Amino acid sequence: MSTTVGQVIRCKAAVAWEAGKPLVMEEVDVAPPQKMEVRLKILYTSLCHTDVYFWEAKGQNPVFPRILGHEAAGIVESVGEGVTELAPGDHVLPVFTGECKDCAHCKSEESNMCSLLRINTDRGVMINDGQSRFSINGKPIYHFVGTSTFSEYTVVHVGCVAKINPLAPLDKVCVLSCGISTGLGATLNVAKPTKGSSVAIFGLGAVGLAAAEGARIAGASRIIGVDLNASRFEQAKKFGVTEFVNPKDYSKPVQEVIAEMTDGGVDRSVECTGHIDAMISAFECVHDGWGVAVLVGVPHKEAVFKTHPMNFLNERTLKGTFFGNYKPRSDIPSVVEKYMNKELELEKFITHTLPFAEINKAFDLMLKGEGLRCIITMED
Amino acid sequence: MSTTVGQVIRCKAAVAWEAGKPLVMEEVDVAPPQKMEVRLKILYTSLCHTDVYFWEAKGQNPVFPRILGHEAAGIVESVGEGVTELAPGDHVLPVFTGECKDCAHCKSEESNMCSLLRINTDRGVMINDGQSRFSINGKPIYHFVGTSTFSEYTVVHVGCVAKINPLAPLDKVCVLSCGISTGLGATLNVAKPTKGSSVAIFGLGAVGLAAAEGARIAGASRIIGVDLNASRFEQAKKFGVTEFVNPKDYSKPVQEVIAEMTDGGVDRSVECTGHIDAMISAFECVHDGWGVAVLVGVPHKEAVFKTHPMNFLNERTLKGTFFGNYKPRSDIPSVVEKYMNKELELEKFITHTLPFAEINKAFDLMLKGEGLRCIITMED
Repeated sequence: MSTTVGQVIRCKAAVAWEAGKPLVMEEVDVAPPQKMEVRLKILYTSLCHTDVYFWEAKGQNPVFPRILGHEAAGIVESVGEGVTELAPGDHVLPVFTGECKDCAHCKSEESNMCSLLRINTDRGVMINDGQSRFSINGKPIYHFVGTSTFSEYTVVHVGCVAKINPLAPLDKVCVLSCGISTGLGATLNVAKPTKGSSVAIFGLGAVGLAAAEGARIAGASRIIGVDLNASRFEQAKKFGVTEFVNPKDYSKPVQEVIAEMTDGGVDRSVECTGHIDAMISAFECVHDGWGVAVLVGVPHKEAVFKTHPMNFLNERTLKGTFFGNYKPRSDIPSVVEKYMNKELELEKFITHTLPFAEINKAFDLMLKGEGLRCIITMED
Repeated sequence: MSTTVGQVIRCKAAVAWEAGKPLVMEEVDVAPPQKMEVRLKILYTSLCHTDVYFWEAKGQNPVFPRILGHEAAGIVESVGEGVTELAPGDHVLPVFTGECKDCAHCKSEESNMCSLLRINTDRGVMINDGQSRFSINGKPIYHFVGTSTFSEYTVVHVGCVAKINPLAPLDKVCVLSCGISTGLGATLNVAKPTKGSSVAIFGLGAVGLAAAEGARIAGASRIIGVDLNASRFEQAKKFGVTEFVNPKDYSKPVQEVIAEMTDGGVDRSVECTGHIDAMISAFECVHDGWGVAVLVGVPHKEAVFKTHPMNFLNERTLKGTFFGNYKPRSDIPSVVEKYMNKELELEKFITHTLPFAEINKAFDLMLKGEGLRCIITMED
């Protein structure tokens, strides 16, 4: 790879030219990494709802043309000035939120919301110079959340790159860049169920099932899956979900149903839908005295969380989490190790695989709600 | 005291015959303790807002005639069947909520909301037989929150009695039965500020000042007192409060004022007013990433807590606490020790002292908002 160092690399990328239209496979120029940046060769990427959300661009600032993609795995091709922690050949996961290791958030043991590199969905350029590293015939193509992994090569801030065990299979661990870590960490790092406890998971998509996987790893004895889509229940059993509640089957609020099933409420709950009613139910279904509810799903801009304050006074706790409270550089390598030592099962999240040329089929699958994660193989 | 064991004791008690009317000093008969009960000689009692609230009986079930009082200290006079942990002569604090040591709450490390002996403000009788131990000419006088300390003798469930160091001055540590422990524990046990951190305290009454005392003990470097009554600010300095915010002085929400003062928010906040707007402000004024807000004040029945769920998603935590998360029998003796070793200062909470005969003056002081705690001396 040394021949490409310092050079512009021309490669294939799937460009979103406008909202909701199929991505177009283009030849793009990828500039060399600048100060504190690294250029990555992406080997595998997968599709997450957030890609689809910003591709549809309903209600957000449309930033086009853009290279989407943020769940991926690759190898460092070259590094920019000042980068000492990474070298060409390192196996890495790019992450949509960063860790500068220098701000108040990075120095706090409790936060992973880096002040410098926190997710920014409106910014389509690198922070070093406010420019894009992608172009076609000199015309810039914008970045997405600092990762833009729907490209054979991409440029990422070094703070958004987790160096991982080189023995880890990149076609599996690529899913740890976003959704799976988000759900897993919400349970393991934030809800922290104890062995033998009960956990309710709201929403049985990939993030919710990763939250269930966290509950299984923690040794929860009851994992209650809540979803409006009954077809998800069969699949959820593989993730340790022991009981199912479809709110549509009851005339009373689901929090009351869960309280009756569990003698007053579950020990922990994790909300992965982003719907405000589910958030309220997830909070109100935890047991008084010790219950902890964790919000993961991203809510609508206009949403308002409402509850009677006595629900708090009776010693319930409500927390939110972002990327499962994992600091990307410090913590994600250890999540990869959890997979390597067979504590965490990733294969069951991977329901489809497609070559890069067929990336639009991955969008179709997600829009139809089919499967959990579709791995896109960059090299044929 | 052995002459009174097993006998009815006739003694003085201040009886609330009806809502909002001055208490009347009466001769009452106090029956011997039954199974799992103890009879206490009360030496000191103080007045808490909760006594006044149920005396006024606005919006609650009026239970009269009743002997109010729940912040107190005394000595065990005799014990009922099955009581092994206490013996006549033991120095104790009666507590309005109990610890049976056998229910799921008592067995949980996280909860102090005992299923058997949790505060019950509507019940005016003992749980053993559903009867009162107080009477005048055979007519029952009702209990209050299982304590009824406005009487020279009272009968309390053994689960509501904390045995303390016999060297502790009862005229000081009596205030640890309720308000001071509630505020102190909210900070030390629930908010848990670290050394050098910033803490906002909403409401600078006795509970809020006890929360500030907790922040001072924890080594907080900034303790921001928030109160609508500017006259409380001078006194609050004695409790370690370093800065003051009167929401009336600003046209913007107090959470924004605090965020500006603290580069994004305080590390911890403790809400001690019970007003819903203060609860919302206390939550929204904590820093994203690591902020924890703790609700202590009891809200109005109709109150609704409202906030944008992104305030949670940005890694803020909201918790409520009850009696500062202290388990009364297990933990309160150690709070007494904090006073004995001069870590905790109680004298500054005690602003008035009155003889039992003048108990109605204590009500007047509280209604006028004068002082913090008025100690009532049962023996002249």
